[in-house]
Amino acid sequence: MSEAKRLRIAVLGGAGKEGGGLALRWANAGHHVIIGSRNAERAQEAANEINATLGREAASGADNKSAAQQAELVVLAVPFSAQRALAEEVSNDLQGKILIDVTVPLVPPKVSRVQLPENGSAVEAIQKLLGTDVRVVSAFQNISAHHLKDLDHAIDCDVLVCADDAEAGELVVGLAREIGLGAWYAGALCNSVVAEALTSVLIALNRRYKVPDSGIRITGLPKPE
Amino acid sequence: MSEAKRLRIAVLGGAGKEGGGLALRWANAGHHVIIGSRNAERAQEAANEINATLGREAASGADNKSAAQQAELVVLAVPFSAQRALAEEVSNDLQGKILIDVTVPLVPPKVSRVQLPENGSAVEAIQKLLGTDVRVVSAFQNISAHHLKDLDHAIDCDVLVCADDAEAGELVVGLAREIGLGAWYAGALCNSVVAEALTSVLIALNRRYKVPDSGIRITGLPKPE
Repeated sequence: MSEAKRLRIAVLGGAGKEGGGLALRWANAGHHVIIGSRNAERAQEAANEINATLGREAASGADNKSAAQQAELVVLAVPFSAQRALAEEVSNDLQGKILIDVTVPLVPPKVSRVQLPENGSAVEAIQKLLGTDVRVVSAFQNISAHHLKDLDHAIDCDVLVCADDAEAGELVVGLAREIGLGAWYAGALCNSVVAEALTSVLIALNRRYKVPDSGIRITGLPKPE
Repeated sequence: MSEAKRLRIAVLGGAGKEGGGLALRWANAGHHVIIGSRNAERAQEAANEINATLGREAASGADNKSAAQQAELVVLAVPFSAQRALAEEVSNDLQGKILIDVTVPLVPPKVSRVQLPENGSAVEAIQKLLGTDVRVVSAFQNISAHHLKDLDHAIDCDVLVCADDAEAGELVVGLAREIGLGAWYAGALCNSVVAEALTSVLIALNRRYKVPDSGIRITGLPKPE
């Protein structure tokens, strides 16, 4: 990977499972990762774990707001119930940057039923909240967290990347492919409805067919260059 | 295929592309298909084409209402703009039966953008309209019509089948597999949001990657028995 493409990526909620898995993989790919958490100490512990796994200083930890401030690109990887409040908290620190939203709008306890927000996708509400100077990209909703943590595991699931800004979308497609995932630019941010709702469908399929983690692959597309 | 499983299947909108493709494949699989159309003559012509292709009397034609009356199982395969009015017209003829809704809620001209109805999936509104004595199943939204028409074409796309009645859902999974499609019971009718919205995502992918028809496969599931 060329030095020029090395990014400072903040993963808010990076002490959690999904965020932690993405953070580990990006750190492994050569980016500097800043783990964000409500609790700066917990963030530092999660960063220490990544550094121990990789045997070098690839990650640091901070509270969510500081992490967002330090980064060029920010990832929002918290539970749906915490998504909006955290986006509001760091809104000023995101201006001019790309935000990757990983949020799945699951509504417990019926997580195998699609229960989208009334006005469509959850990520569109976040784009509206942050304003047009933040380029919001939706991705990674359908990837198993525990497979991300296992660096040797080949993940049999594609990432649908949705963004109104095509350039930002393509950048995230590249970031997903760098960490071993199939990824495709799937159109405007409103198309994120599919990825957000698909997680409940995959949970329903896991239960019906008694498997640990179903996924999707897109067919009929050319092999990535 | 055993005689016991031979069904009388009405395909409303069966003179159209998607409905016509499904009708041809079910007729080929040994079912009796009744093509329904607003215009009974047009329905009969479409049935004649199927019979000519197969070299036997496997299909007949009728106006939509008569077709629904004659069938044990009814398929709704009309454009989104015609879906509700037709469901109302044949409501009485559907009571006690299974209805497979194939409708994709595309809103021209921006068909590559997901634009779902305000209250979630289109099919849930139809279930509400018809009442609980009609077992509504959502399926086939993501399958290319022109590949269905080519009986030798192996279609590289899975069907997500959603239904509140699991027995009806499994029956439709079987009907899809009979005609050479991968198919999975993907949970409650509300989960149809994914299949309905996915068509716009596939259109966006087709445009972005310059391919004729992308599709999806579900990964991580056991091979069908």
